[in-house]
Amino acid sequence: MFSEEDHSHMRCAMEEAKKAASMGEVPIGAVLVDASGVIVARSGNVTITQSDPTAHAEITIIRARCQEVGAQRIPDHDLYVTLEPCAMCAAAIAFARIRRLIFAAPDAKGGGVLHGGQFFGQPTCHHRIIVEHGLYAEESGQLLREFFAARR
Amino acid sequence: MFSEEDHSHMRCAMEEAKKAASMGEVPIGAVLVDASGVIVARSGNVTITQSDPTAHAEITIIRARCQEVGAQRIPDHDLYVTLEPCAMCAAAIAFARIRRLIFAAPDAKGGGVLHGGQFFGQPTCHHRIIVEHGLYAEESGQLLREFFAARR
Repeated sequence: MFSEEDHSHMRCAMEEAKKAASMGEVPIGAVLVDASGVIVARSGNVTITQSDPTAHAEITIIRARCQEVGAQRIPDHDLYVTLEPCAMCAAAIAFARIRRLIFAAPDAKGGGVLHGGQFFGQPTCHHRIIVEHGLYAEESGQLLREFFAARR
Repeated sequence: MFSEEDHSHMRCAMEEAKKAASMGEVPIGAVLVDASGVIVARSGNVTITQSDPTAHAEITIIRARCQEVGAQRIPDHDLYVTLEPCAMCAAAIAFARIRRLIFAAPDAKGGGVLHGGQFFGQPTCHHRIIVEHGLYAEESGQLLREFFAARR
């Protein structure tokens, strides 16, 4: 189901998640890959360091890439993220016309793809996207659990 | 139901929507009001001019105000917007801990408050917010219809 490239890209997203944790941010990371398979943007969550509640990893890389190419839509890009996107990020992913979303761990508490409003299945979502998940799910979940356990 | 201040703030949001239209952006405007009733941020949609699919009016003013105060949460702020927020903006509004959301027109096609995943009613939404709507709904809907009719 997942290719060697998928594994490699998700490992990069995991590295971004770990970097986020080292900065006191929630350890979630994401990378954006163009049609030729090259990583064109990568980030962890930066909501605290940037004082921006919208600066989730997914939003941050979508904004960076859109500004780089000078467009608000970047079809033919795949997005890898270590946790199920929330409703905000799911909608942003659809607005950007991302081709394929691959996420690691599910997020029962805050997810918006498999949980909550399940954005991609709503009639208010006007983009058809390929969604796959489960790659490095255990590692990502473990990283998040350790992070929150250490903060308690 | 709506105070004189509400009318005044929504008229400002309508002005932002009209400015957006004059720049070729979808005519949606929003203002953010602090606890003392002062408008602290205002914007229209700027997704095209900023090459940013996340730059809806609501997101733009939340980012601006959060960066100004150096925090990712701005409780005691009220947000006025001329159209029902989408799923992305509804979630961002909850993340920012906005106290009260007032919107003008409903958005059956893309809304995320009364329509679609109805974010604020989901167990994945962890913020309780006051939501009111209908103020200047006809004016806002008319502005949007005229904008899209002229583009066809």
